[in-house]
Amino acid sequence: MAQYGARMVVPIDVKKKPWEQKLPLHNRWHPDIPAVAEATVGEVFRVEMVDFSGGGITKDYTVKDIKNADPSIVHYLSGPIRIVDKDGIPAKPGDLLAVEICNLGPLPGDEWGFTATFDRENGGGFLTDHFPSATKAIWYFEGIYAYSPHIPGVRFAGLTHPGIVGTAPSMELLNIWNERERQLEENGLHSLKLCEVLHQRPLANLPSTKGCVLGKIQEGTPEWEKIAREAARTIPGRENGGNCDIKNLSRGSKVYLPVFVEGANLSTGDMHFSQGDGEISFCGAIEMSGFLELKCEIIRGGMKEYLTPMGPTPLHVNPIFEIGPVEPRFSEWLVFEGISVDESGRQHYLDASIAYKRAVLNAIDYLSKFGYSKEQNV
Amino acid sequence: MAQYGARMVVPIDVKKKPWEQKLPLHNRWHPDIPAVAEATVGEVFRVEMVDFSGGGITKDYTVKDIKNADPSIVHYLSGPIRIVDKDGIPAKPGDLLAVEICNLGPLPGDEWGFTATFDRENGGGFLTDHFPSATKAIWYFEGIYAYSPHIPGVRFAGLTHPGIVGTAPSMELLNIWNERERQLEENGLHSLKLCEVLHQRPLANLPSTKGCVLGKIQEGTPEWEKIAREAARTIPGRENGGNCDIKNLSRGSKVYLPVFVEGANLSTGDMHFSQGDGEISFCGAIEMSGFLELKCEIIRGGMKEYLTPMGPTPLHVNPIFEIGPVEPRFSEWLVFEGISVDESGRQHYLDASIAYKRAVLNAIDYLSKFGYSKEQNV
Amino acid sequence: MAQYGARMVVPIDVKKKPWEQKLPLHNRWHPDIPAVAEATVGEVFRVEMVDFSGGGITKDYTVKDIKNADPSIVHYLSGPIRIVDKDGIPAKPGDLLAVEICNLGPLPGDEWGFTATFDRENGGGFLTDHFPSATKAIWYFEGIYAYSPHIPGVRFAGLTHPGIVGTAPSMELLNIWNERERQLEENGLHSLKLCEVLHQRPLANLPSTKGCVLGKIQEGTPEWEKIAREAARTIPGRENGGNCDIKNLSRGSKVYLPVFVEGANLSTGDMHFSQGDGEISFCGAIEMSGFLELKCEIIRGGMKEYLTPMGPTPLHVNPIFEIGPVEPRFSEWLVFEGISVDESGRQHYLDASIAYKRAVLNAIDYLSKFGYSKEQNV
Amino acid sequence: MAQYGARMVVPIDVKKKPWEQKLPLHNRWHPDIPAVAEATVGEVFRVEMVDFSGGGITKDYTVKDIKNADPSIVHYLSGPIRIVDKDGIPAKPGDLLAVEICNLGPLPGDEWGFTATFDRENGGGFLTDHFPSATKAIWYFEGIYAYSPHIPGVRFAGLTHPGIVGTAPSMELLNIWNERERQLEENGLHSLKLCEVLHQRPLANLPSTKGCVLGKIQEGTPEWEKIAREAARTIPGRENGGNCDIKNLSRGSKVYLPVFVEGANLSTGDMHFSQGDGEISFCGAIEMSGFLELKCEIIRGGMKEYLTPMGPTPLHVNPIFEIGPVEPRFSEWLVFEGISVDESGRQHYLDASIAYKRAVLNAIDYLSKFGYSKEQNV
Repeated sequence: MAQYGARMVVPIDVKKKPWEQKLPLHNRWHPDIPAVAEATVGEVFRVEMVDFSGGGITKDYTVKDIKNADPSIVHYLSGPIRIVDKDGIPAKPGDLLAVEICNLGPLPGDEWGFTATFDRENGGGFLTDHFPSATKAIWYFEGIYAYSPHIPGVRFAGLTHPGIVGTAPSMELLNIWNERERQLEENGLHSLKLCEVLHQRPLANLPSTKGCVLGKIQEGTPEWEKIAREAARTIPGRENGGNCDIKNLSRGSKVYLPVFVEGANLSTGDMHFSQGDGEISFCGAIEMSGFLELKCEIIRGGMKEYLTPMGPTPLHVNPIFEIGPVEPRFSEWLVFEGISVDESGRQHYLDASIAYKRAVLNAIDYLSKFGYSKEQNV
Repeated sequence: MAQYGARMVVPIDVKKKPWEQKLPLHNRWHPDIPAVAEATVGEVFRVEMVDFSGGGITKDYTVKDIKNADPSIVHYLSGPIRIVDKDGIPAKPGDLLAVEICNLGPLPGDEWGFTATFDRENGGGFLTDHFPSATKAIWYFEGIYAYSPHIPGVRFAGLTHPGIVGTAPSMELLNIWNERERQLEENGLHSLKLCEVLHQRPLANLPSTKGCVLGKIQEGTPEWEKIAREAARTIPGRENGGNCDIKNLSRGSKVYLPVFVEGANLSTGDMHFSQGDGEISFCGAIEMSGFLELKCEIIRGGMKEYLTPMGPTPLHVNPIFEIGPVEPRFSEWLVFEGISVDESGRQHYLDASIAYKRAVLNAIDYLSKFGYSKEQNV
Repeated sequence: MAQYGARMVVPIDVKKKPWEQKLPLHNRWHPDIPAVAEATVGEVFRVEMVDFSGGGITKDYTVKDIKNADPSIVHYLSGPIRIVDKDGIPAKPGDLLAVEICNLGPLPGDEWGFTATFDRENGGGFLTDHFPSATKAIWYFEGIYAYSPHIPGVRFAGLTHPGIVGTAPSMELLNIWNERERQLEENGLHSLKLCEVLHQRPLANLPSTKGCVLGKIQEGTPEWEKIAREAARTIPGRENGGNCDIKNLSRGSKVYLPVFVEGANLSTGDMHFSQGDGEISFCGAIEMSGFLELKCEIIRGGMKEYLTPMGPTPLHVNPIFEIGPVEPRFSEWLVFEGISVDESGRQHYLDASIAYKRAVLNAIDYLSKFGYSKEQNV
Repeated sequence: MAQYGARMVVPIDVKKKPWEQKLPLHNRWHPDIPAVAEATVGEVFRVEMVDFSGGGITKDYTVKDIKNADPSIVHYLSGPIRIVDKDGIPAKPGDLLAVEICNLGPLPGDEWGFTATFDRENGGGFLTDHFPSATKAIWYFEGIYAYSPHIPGVRFAGLTHPGIVGTAPSMELLNIWNERERQLEENGLHSLKLCEVLHQRPLANLPSTKGCVLGKIQEGTPEWEKIAREAARTIPGRENGGNCDIKNLSRGSKVYLPVFVEGANLSTGDMHFSQGDGEISFCGAIEMSGFLELKCEIIRGGMKEYLTPMGPTPLHVNPIFEIGPVEPRFSEWLVFEGISVDESGRQHYLDASIAYKRAVLNAIDYLSKFGYSKEQNV
């Protein structure tokens, strides 16, 4: 008789801290973070996850936790999970790992999430010049619907997805990441606009031991120190997938990830109840804890066959995302145009970021007509 | 702080029989079947349910259970659930009960279902002349997808829904049902085709104590005897909703049910993983156990305001079904035409049932071109 | 250089009568109605058509034309069109003709249509017991939208399609049709319900010279007399496709029709701006004149390979309809349940027609709540 | 009786040059370009248009016309059309003009289009570093489908839309445009990346008499000289709508445009058969001539009520685009991730343009696996 039902592989207790979980979490990418679990191709397995902040942001109606949020700790990930084939042979570097999202949702008993804007003092975000103060809205989930007591009258059907899904980098790939990010920090002025240089915005978040959590590697040991000083941050998307934030990556989607280390070492986290076009729009997704039910296949040698290097080495590849067949049917659909002219009326040369910001501000403003404050719309 | 998460109202243990459940099930409609639980408007509550056969049909790879299926026991329903408003005042006759399906799915650990054709000896079904023997296929669920070892190569995204959702009839409405069904049995020849008269098919399933399960009412007591002799069967859809089998009644749908007794006494069951256009097509849906997460509103006096009597009394109303915003996006879509000419080449006068049967047989035949047996396609 | 643009094959002048058109129309199925035009596989060709009544029903705001509509003349079809391959070899009996609908729409300058209920005196329709008088509503088209001055406040996006598309029957198939329809008329009582017998409804519309129009065959000639007495009526759908009335058969759809005569002799007509689920629902589609841009392929020998006989001869086949990728996205979706109990409260045995009628009446009634008369909703 | 059918307002003869058309075209924005036609609110009117190049790019299978394309002439627009209400009172500055796209399509007999990449010598495009040579593919339309002999095996359903729809600017707004674009050209280095400074890419296309076509204003007259020196180019989107290139702006969409001059002076052009996400992706849309059937409403004073100024003056507004209900249903959907690391492996700081380019190159590369050259995929 065939097997059925999802086998629990990474359980989460939302009352515990990320490092207290039965299978401890991690918040960096590194080949030496040991796998905490194993899954076999063909089986459906369940991975639970905390929200990106690891419970640091609570469902209390206060912005204090947002104001003091520690950016060094994002994002807490579940895994790594070692993937083996039916003969027990692990995924190998050069293979392609196909990860199907069979099901996903909030954790039973923890059906809530939040949206927020970070305080300018604390790093801020895409619209920080317009909304410099920390804000927070709590959302409650009723099946496919979410509503917030902070934004009365709004209730909508979400399209839930994990913000991060990725494989572990090899040491060689990690070195490439660290080298190019270091270069950016050191010599980045050439790719910065002059105005940005004057405003001294940070260019890259290089490895740092601060806030670093490495799963089974005990904090403070020499091994921990070494890994923490090398491990890549989780904020940018990279060749291993990572923080892709694709709003339609929901039920039935399939991600084709390159394998860089034996076992693939799959990690995932940063669940979103729903998200706009781009996480930055409307100040990010509704952040939540949750679960994924996944099913993997290993395509032997598939990395070379399906992914073409996009840079100087065979490691410069990009994953492929196949979107699932289910999404809400919305009745109304407005598009806002943004042009590359800032709010002082000054034009910038083909600046997609300014144009996008203008389109978002435009949308925020439009929603204000219906009686919401601008902060509610963000 | 707002409430969130679904409150468990009717739990199911699939290892137990319908009458052994903590909140015993019922398989008839009657005003005197006592409510087993209560839910308040606005709260999201969870109702679990067995499959329509109450576990009589197993996941063993044998048709014996189908062959011997006892038609007197269908369908085991969860409930009745008494619905009250925030002040504790129950729904009243004449109100409208809006039931929103916030979420639904298989029971964790029981992610499987079955399709089957009944044996001609045992009642048969829509296509029994073509497929007289009992058949059974087991389907396993992988999130939104189902596959069957009995139909290799097929895997598809389902649209899960409860086949039955209804309120309890009042005694007056129940009498109407019993009277018209008795009349049909007694004088039904006028509405039967002559050929059907010759084949002596049963016209209606009148109340019968055989196989009757009445929740908290203990079998064999005088109260049980009385109710069992009056209670309506669950097979036809009626004014209270009942066996509506609407394939799109999935996440986000809302059903507006008339209230005939105090508390509304909502019951539900007969979960389907997926279904064709009409349950009979392809021999019914994929039957399964499962759960619903529901949220109710009471629209005081809404029955008169929104539902118009369609017969001689104010009780002759029909519920309204508002379909939810989520459904799979299929890539290919074929339509088969059926005409009112039977397989001997004889034409029948505007016979929608024959035309439908021909369209179904046509589709079955088409699928056979791809190497499946006709039984696999049914 | 490749060919492009649709070649006009059947032009229509809506100011002329069906028999005055440059390529005269026909309203019967018969192998000896000569082709009026030819099209080659691979080319996109344009077929224009009158509305089903051939202009008998006008855009005047009066029901007189509905009241006196002559049922003997429906449906005026454009064609037959002989289909040949790139070497000029015509489609042969046993081939399959794939007809793709590349584009369709109203005739420029004739962007209007009508819905109507026939008078009981004049045959009536599905809901004639409820709406015995003739009614008519004129609809004007604004691109994808239609509105009617007779139903104020309603404007919706339609899904335009031809109600009829079919190939000419062979003499052998025509004989089968006539024989089984004659049998139905003569011995039909066995398949009639007793109540229908008492009401003496006509069972089949057998060939009749009255109102018969046969394209290039001149009325009154011996040839015309012979064909008119044999030719099948266009109302029922049959093995050749015919009056299929599939509401989604719009842009991008593909119909696979069996070929029974040399050249296939494709005919089409009965354009609908939009239609419910089943033409009878809400009393039919919005009838209109219009155009199709078609592209054909011939699949040699495909009839045997793709269509299985569903009756005693190889001619008992059914076409396949592949639905196109474009349809409106509606925001709200209600389902009405119909049960097999008539408006007097009497139950009928699994009577799909009564149940359907009840669902339709139910929907009509629901719409009345918004201030429309029942006739406006029909 | 109601009016119906679209009234021809701007006819096009594709055999004539833009300035030879019955109602001559224009390719600049200026308040003094006189209206060539008038339309009344509520009526459906037809506007035909040439392709953006005004026929300069032909359906010959040669890239010579692409190589020598004159960038000073884009885009030829139809109009301006003066919009008046039912009392003949024109739209006034401060009003909002709602323009509904009732229908659209290719011009009968001109059902073809082209995609192209410009030669680096001639300005190039988004991917010019990767594809420096001029390329061209001709596409033929078969209803909703397009295919190209230059990209064998591809045939897909498009979503046709006008790339440009806008109202005339007032002199005050035009001055703002010219001033900020002049500033950008003069002082733009601060918003340029250093590397771009080195490559000396043009920053803005300021008004220029070269290639200027101004409708009814005769070339060479003093009036023409004055307007040509002031009139804004059509390439950027601006407060008046303009070159918005929204791929879903198809049948049933509605654009809310601010009115800056009496009569609104609506112009439109740059029809696209289909387009990716962003016109630059895959090197732009399929360019074509075509027609729009439009219907307007004037919302008196609506500019202030619905559009909030996003800059220092009340003129700094943005139009709103309401997307129509019809779009193709695609069966497969892949997403490609782009990261801000260029092809030499160097990382750039949050550079959306590089990330987007990488995603596009990634997609191009993926399609190459199926046997297409990279140029075919672009």
